[in-house]
Amino acid sequence: MTNQRTPVPAPEDLILGIDQSDTTSLARAITLVESENPEHLSKAARVIEACLKSRPETKRIGITGVPGVGKSTFIESLGMSLINAGHSVAVLAIDPTSSLSKGSILGDKTRMTSLSSHPKAFIRPSASGDSLGGVARKTREAIILCEAAGYDIILVETVGVGQSETAVHSMVDFFLLLKLAGAGDELQGIKRGIIEMADAIVINKAEGANVASAKQAQTEFSRALHLYPPKASEWQPKVGTCSAIENSGIAEIWEMILDYFLSVQKNGYLEAHRSAQNKQWLMQHLEDVLKSEFFGSETLKKQLDEWVVKVENHEVSPFKAAELLLADYRKELK
Amino acid sequence: MTNQRTPVPAPEDLILGIDQSDTTSLARAITLVESENPEHLSKAARVIEACLKSRPETKRIGITGVPGVGKSTFIESLGMSLINAGHSVAVLAIDPTSSLSKGSILGDKTRMTSLSSHPKAFIRPSASGDSLGGVARKTREAIILCEAAGYDIILVETVGVGQSETAVHSMVDFFLLLKLAGAGDELQGIKRGIIEMADAIVINKAEGANVASAKQAQTEFSRALHLYPPKASEWQPKVGTCSAIENSGIAEIWEMILDYFLSVQKNGYLEAHRSAQNKQWLMQHLEDVLKSEFFGSETLKKQLDEWVVKVENHEVSPFKAAELLLADYRKELK
Repeated sequence: MTNQRTPVPAPEDLILGIDQSDTTSLARAITLVESENPEHLSKAARVIEACLKSRPETKRIGITGVPGVGKSTFIESLGMSLINAGHSVAVLAIDPTSSLSKGSILGDKTRMTSLSSHPKAFIRPSASGDSLGGVARKTREAIILCEAAGYDIILVETVGVGQSETAVHSMVDFFLLLKLAGAGDELQGIKRGIIEMADAIVINKAEGANVASAKQAQTEFSRALHLYPPKASEWQPKVGTCSAIENSGIAEIWEMILDYFLSVQKNGYLEAHRSAQNKQWLMQHLEDVLKSEFFGSETLKKQLDEWVVKVENHEVSPFKAAELLLADYRKELK
Repeated sequence: MTNQRTPVPAPEDLILGIDQSDTTSLARAITLVESENPEHLSKAARVIEACLKSRPETKRIGITGVPGVGKSTFIESLGMSLINAGHSVAVLAIDPTSSLSKGSILGDKTRMTSLSSHPKAFIRPSASGDSLGGVARKTREAIILCEAAGYDIILVETVGVGQSETAVHSMVDFFLLLKLAGAGDELQGIKRGIIEMADAIVINKAEGANVASAKQAQTEFSRALHLYPPKASEWQPKVGTCSAIENSGIAEIWEMILDYFLSVQKNGYLEAHRSAQNKQWLMQHLEDVLKSEFFGSETLKKQLDEWVVKVENHEVSPFKAAELLLADYRKELK
């Protein structure tokens, strides 16, 4: 691990570095936040609390889509056009499988050649971790750090494994679903509920012979989206087409995203939504910790396994087993 | 409350009564299980543990559908035909709103006139409670009690509010979705994911002028269901039509349900699924208790409210607030 090779910098140095938009400080601060080392926790918390105070005006955009849909190319194309328009862009990723597959998103970095070498862009592969909750928490804190370092557009990419889309949705202002024309949802591996989350569906690879089918898919989705109940944001989700590889349609998609932000800034939803997200994260994190402390207890683990077998064999009711396990847990806490 | 008027019978008497299929003992045992009085907890647990041992061969069937689809009439019709075929039928309900609306399912009882007066049927309205978790737990324990009392068919009805379908699905062997022809899912208030849970979709009110549209809906749903991934039970969900009010199609639906049970008994899924449900209930109940103890802590409540405001206003990160709250909680436990 990188954070083992060099000594951990003092929080104050990191805070100063981030304030000066120093990417080395930013990268180190994210590494600190991602560290599983308990000694790093309070240092990380100090950096986060300092960065929280800056609260610059930013746009957080989530991007999802199944593998092969062209997420990296899309982010490369969108990211470069944003930089050319004067923005600074941070790309983060949520991939709860990254600790297993090692670098599915690191691979992406090599596919974002212009963006990854541009000084106004910051690309960070997914944190690794055993639980989506842990990975998501680290990404959320990385967003705060990137924003404090001056990146005004945050793109959060997800590979769409398990509940990772829901995690990304809970930390962004705008959620974009990338699709291909001509394949059903089932074939594209798109899970139920994702379309309801989307503020925009973008049909990628609308190029050459695919243009007609992309346009048709656009019409069909636009019609289908009108059947969904209205969103709390009062935003009517839009469907667009683009060819990320040919850089066509990207400007229109950005215009649409800007329309969204204008609308939700005006009606107060953006601010209310970010507050609600913060509250939701507090509640979620409290639950996560309560659960992980209980289920992670080494002394309880063996007992739990034994009770599970008895419960599976109908020897004892789940509620009786729970009662006895919790009584032991309370004793252990004392 | 009924259980305040008469003294609580001794667990041994209830166990004996249930074993003798005495419905008064069964009703009182369910009341005991539903009681919020902490003194009743250990008595209830003793009754449950004793009833768990009997493990008769039973069929647990969940029935859902939006209000107006004819659930009560369907249960009346199916229930009477089962009794005529020699079965004993218990009807339970899950309605997390029943404490508010007072008797939306009690109302049902008056609509099941033949069934509710038949000695081979036992109808119990939904337990009341603040949380779905609590209501569901009580219903699950009531299933065990009814089975021990000799009811071999358990019908669990849900009104489909919130996550109540998921709760019912987690406690039955077979899950039946009742629908009407001619209205879209959105119009019928059917939530996403419900269709995936269903082992059968039954189009009710296939009578008179509705027969043609019901048949058409049947064809459409059969086709659509084939697009879903195969189930762990290896059962291909079926679509049927019926008119509960005219008692037509009910026998065919029961035949189909019997086909299902034959199939899952043979391939071992029924037994494996009930074991897995037991484990799932243990895990879920452990989580519920951990959460309710934390969020129900009176001393913590005020602090939590204060931290929520700070978190909503971006004054402190959700993770820092969680850390401080949990530290206070641990102190309180000691």
